[in-house]
Amino acid sequence: MPLKLLKSTGNEHNEYTKDQEVHVMNPYLDSMEEDILYHFSLSTRTHNLPKMFGDTKFVCVGGSTSRMKAFAEFMHQELGLSGNAGDIQDICAGTDRYCMYKVGPVLSISHGMGVPSISIMLHELIKLLHHARCRDVILFRIGTSGGIGLPPGTVVITDKAVDSFFQPQFEQVVLGQVIVRSTELDKGLAQELLRCSGELPALPAIISNTMCTFDFYEGQGRLDGALCSFSPEEKLEYLHKAHKAGVRNIEMESTVFAAMCHICGLRAAVVCVTLLDRFEGDQISTPHDVLLEYQQRPQCLVSHFIKKRLGLPIMPTPPPQTSQGM
Amino acid sequence: MPLKLLKSTGNEHNEYTKDQEVHVMNPYLDSMEEDILYHFSLSTRTHNLPKMFGDTKFVCVGGSTSRMKAFAEFMHQELGLSGNAGDIQDICAGTDRYCMYKVGPVLSISHGMGVPSISIMLHELIKLLHHARCRDVILFRIGTSGGIGLPPGTVVITDKAVDSFFQPQFEQVVLGQVIVRSTELDKGLAQELLRCSGELPALPAIISNTMCTFDFYEGQGRLDGALCSFSPEEKLEYLHKAHKAGVRNIEMESTVFAAMCHICGLRAAVVCVTLLDRFEGDQISTPHDVLLEYQQRPQCLVSHFIKKRLGLPIMPTPPPQTSQGM
Repeated sequence: MPLKLLKSTGNEHNEYTKDQEVHVMNPYLDSMEEDILYHFSLSTRTHNLPKMFGDTKFVCVGGSTSRMKAFAEFMHQELGLSGNAGDIQDICAGTDRYCMYKVGPVLSISHGMGVPSISIMLHELIKLLHHARCRDVILFRIGTSGGIGLPPGTVVITDKAVDSFFQPQFEQVVLGQVIVRSTELDKGLAQELLRCSGELPALPAIISNTMCTFDFYEGQGRLDGALCSFSPEEKLEYLHKAHKAGVRNIEMESTVFAAMCHICGLRAAVVCVTLLDRFEGDQISTPHDVLLEYQQRPQCLVSHFIKKRLGLPIMPTPPPQTSQGM
Repeated sequence: MPLKLLKSTGNEHNEYTKDQEVHVMNPYLDSMEEDILYHFSLSTRTHNLPKMFGDTKFVCVGGSTSRMKAFAEFMHQELGLSGNAGDIQDICAGTDRYCMYKVGPVLSISHGMGVPSISIMLHELIKLLHHARCRDVILFRIGTSGGIGLPPGTVVITDKAVDSFFQPQFEQVVLGQVIVRSTELDKGLAQELLRCSGELPALPAIISNTMCTFDFYEGQGRLDGALCSFSPEEKLEYLHKAHKAGVRNIEMESTVFAAMCHICGLRAAVVCVTLLDRFEGDQISTPHDVLLEYQQRPQCLVSHFIKKRLGLPIMPTPPPQTSQGM
């Protein structure tokens, strides 16, 4: 079934109605004879990127390959596309760095764990969208996180993505110089997602700040890593400081995701579910099936948003189960 | 075939003959009732880690899942183990974050791309080796990299792992404080690997400094990312500065690998092949089959080292081909 992107019908952010190209901020790119998107195993010479990707309107990225495959299958079903959802092919099958699936106007891509891993993917994704001459694209990071003072299972839509010092910025080293970039995200998009959450049963969601760290153990104040040089009291003091700075969840990719999308004029949102409350502990000991249900919540929320945008009927179906991607 | 670790027979580093445990630097770990190694999908309660891993002597880690599977199959063949190499099972099959294979005393694990991704793996690996009561373990990172002023295909055994400012250190943020750690690697081990390379045909290798960055494009001075704010001349100036500081290759994991192994008293080496010479360009346009041959070189070198250590006959066989893991 061909899908047509509808104009806004109500509460959507105004910017969305503009017809906006994807910008690369690189004066050399368009003069290159060929651009090899090495970690996608794609190239401008060997692949017709406008034909393959030109109609992309929504890009959803997440850490785990199996979760992003499951999301693509779920979206195939939700969009009512013809064919078997299980038959969709990994566009990046020539590499195991990332996986990528396209279902109608939706692209689902994995990005691995941590800022450097997602940053490689984003460079190549933004170039891909540029080469494919895509317009009006919205990006979502859908992931998992540790919560601070929230019941596990809460979906946090990021207001500001902040660093380990609670600053809304991302430091990038370029030729041995530190460059500081804004991590501003689209406030209208966050509000629209929050409204969508209210239309779904059993989908507790809030808008708040998200802290992005470079390490899962020491960097997030965990007492259960191979290295730990602080006391339980010092850990709690740090988490309380974060809470006071408006941080309600911690993950490992949001600052660079927000910074790169902001520079390239891409509307973007970060939607992560919390798997545990860090005030209560460090280990993720929740039963597997409960974790699976939690991690489907960001998928359901973003799917609902996309279907509304496309003017499709809203009849949520449960996302396909995956035993992996935790 | 059961394998026995032989004592040193000549040039090996003296420390190796000591019977050395794997240390965790965390006073809380041993009092925990259960330790869930979440990203491996293993736990001290559900798995008998000493039985599963107690005889591990060599741990080889690399970015790509398919390459680390291919390496495990290659080692199975090289060690002359019984059974079909293709039948080895992923110990981390319950998750898609990392893969892990055990062949005799050799553990082969993937770590994804970038410092945060390998750091999560290393925390859980070091805890695993500790819980399993392993002794005298040597760690190798075998990977790919960009070269500086070297013919592509050169294997670089890291002397010092340096940051983007050419300093042999790793900065870790702990509870909002920056802690600086040494990235010292085992010099005797590096020398021994260099000697091994001289015993193999067509395996050009050197010992030199390796720069570890947090970004593949801007962070390594590439002109072909989605973002680029510097000139080709400024790029070359930076690469020449790196060259003058003894850097001969650039990758994205070595500093935290060196730092964490150093703190925990683990002997470790970084062995990466260069896929291109960054003085000549940024894109990796070498034919696929040539890249495949290059990426097998660190595998062959480390396999040769392990076989010598185990007192096995040295009859190198070609590693299994993989079309992925580039």
